[in-house]
Amino acid sequence: MDLFEKNIKLTKKLIRESINQDNFIVQTINCIEELNRTSNTHVKRLREWYSLHNPESSHFLKDNEKFTELILKKSKSELLKEFNITDSMGANLEETDLKPILNLATQIKSLYQLKTQLETYLETVMKTHMPNTLVLTGPLIGAKLLEIVGSLKRLSQLPASTVQLLGAEKALFRHMRSKAKPPKYGILFTHPLVQKAFSKGKTARALADKISVAAKVDYFKGEFIGDKLLQDLQKRFK
Amino acid sequence: MDLFEKNIKLTKKLIRESINQDNFIVQTINCIEELNRTSNTHVKRLREWYSLHNPESSHFLKDNEKFTELILKKSKSELLKEFNITDSMGANLEETDLKPILNLATQIKSLYQLKTQLETYLETVMKTHMPNTLVLTGPLIGAKLLEIVGSLKRLSQLPASTVQLLGAEKALFRHMRSKAKPPKYGILFTHPLVQKAFSKGKTARALADKISVAAKVDYFKGEFIGDKLLQDLQKRFK
Repeated sequence: MDLFEKNIKLTKKLIRESINQDNFIVQTINCIEELNRTSNTHVKRLREWYSLHNPESSHFLKDNEKFTELILKKSKSELLKEFNITDSMGANLEETDLKPILNLATQIKSLYQLKTQLETYLETVMKTHMPNTLVLTGPLIGAKLLEIVGSLKRLSQLPASTVQLLGAEKALFRHMRSKAKPPKYGILFTHPLVQKAFSKGKTARALADKISVAAKVDYFKGEFIGDKLLQDLQKRFK
Repeated sequence: MDLFEKNIKLTKKLIRESINQDNFIVQTINCIEELNRTSNTHVKRLREWYSLHNPESSHFLKDNEKFTELILKKSKSELLKEFNITDSMGANLEETDLKPILNLATQIKSLYQLKTQLETYLETVMKTHMPNTLVLTGPLIGAKLLEIVGSLKRLSQLPASTVQLLGAEKALFRHMRSKAKPPKYGILFTHPLVQKAFSKGKTARALADKISVAAKVDYFKGEFIGDKLLQDLQKRFK
């Protein structure tokens, strides 16, 4: 085997070994976000289409998942009875015209199911890969943070002030360019602790502090201290 | 029953009766287009994600549908053997990490299936609603024309020159505003006759002529002359 071939073989090996759980987490969270978008597109169409048949039910069932479930389970007359409507505005579609609508609904339902499956998988992977961060952020926010920076290694090297602003890059650069106010939080804004806090900026800063610690512990495979970090926060911002 | 109630009842009845096959066709073609977009989004993600495991197969299988089929049917080693590759760059994922990828693939496969079902349904509806136009345009282009104008009634009232440019509104107004050249075809451009023609503008014009005739016949429930119209065209542009 000459040097060239050996080199190729070695490179392939290195590529193969470079794949780790960071990659799985990034792919999964991206896929979940795409599923959110596509299932929304389809559910909008489903509502419009189904409304030819039964506009009242689409009006009364605001929740998309529930709407999809129910129109699959119950007939038009059953649904109308539930909402106490006797005179529907919808045309009574024949079986052949109703079938494609219900097929679409079935499809959307399984998109929702796939999303749930992926969320469970995401949590399992994160439990072994970054247990401390997971406890602090929950699966979706934690994975999103990882997705923005690319790897746990890099997340563990970032200062807390950067973690606090991940996802707010646009606002940050607007601040640096012009006189706009600096952002106080990026995607941490969606965290329940920040959501219910009175002073959201302060909470986001404290949360970012703890996440930064947790990411370091996770990367160097330290002991599990996630619970303690979370309790500290909850005590301070209850 | 007072006048108000009577009025409501009558309006509901009119709404109910206004729903016809135009609506089904418009909803179906829109849904097919959305399915094209969403299945593309997901297949891109699938390729990226699956490539962690087996990048070579994703590279060799260019066709998205075939790719989705095959990775569900065959294992990594079987696929690699088919392409005569002994040394893969991909990491060998474990069962737990591979499962979500294959779940995604299953989902995409059923999106493709739904699309095929809807296309069949679309053709059935069009066969009764606008058989002449269908023969000339095929289901997708015909439905798209109908979707742009909203109803068969309106399509039958349009002059052929408008039919020719349906879908090219942007280019048309650019032409009217500035010195840009006028468009020669809108969505008729994708029609096989226009595609293989040497003089595409001329073919699109002749095709639009015939579609305009066919739509009128369809709207007034005339006899079936689609075949004759199509033969005329084919004779002229063979």
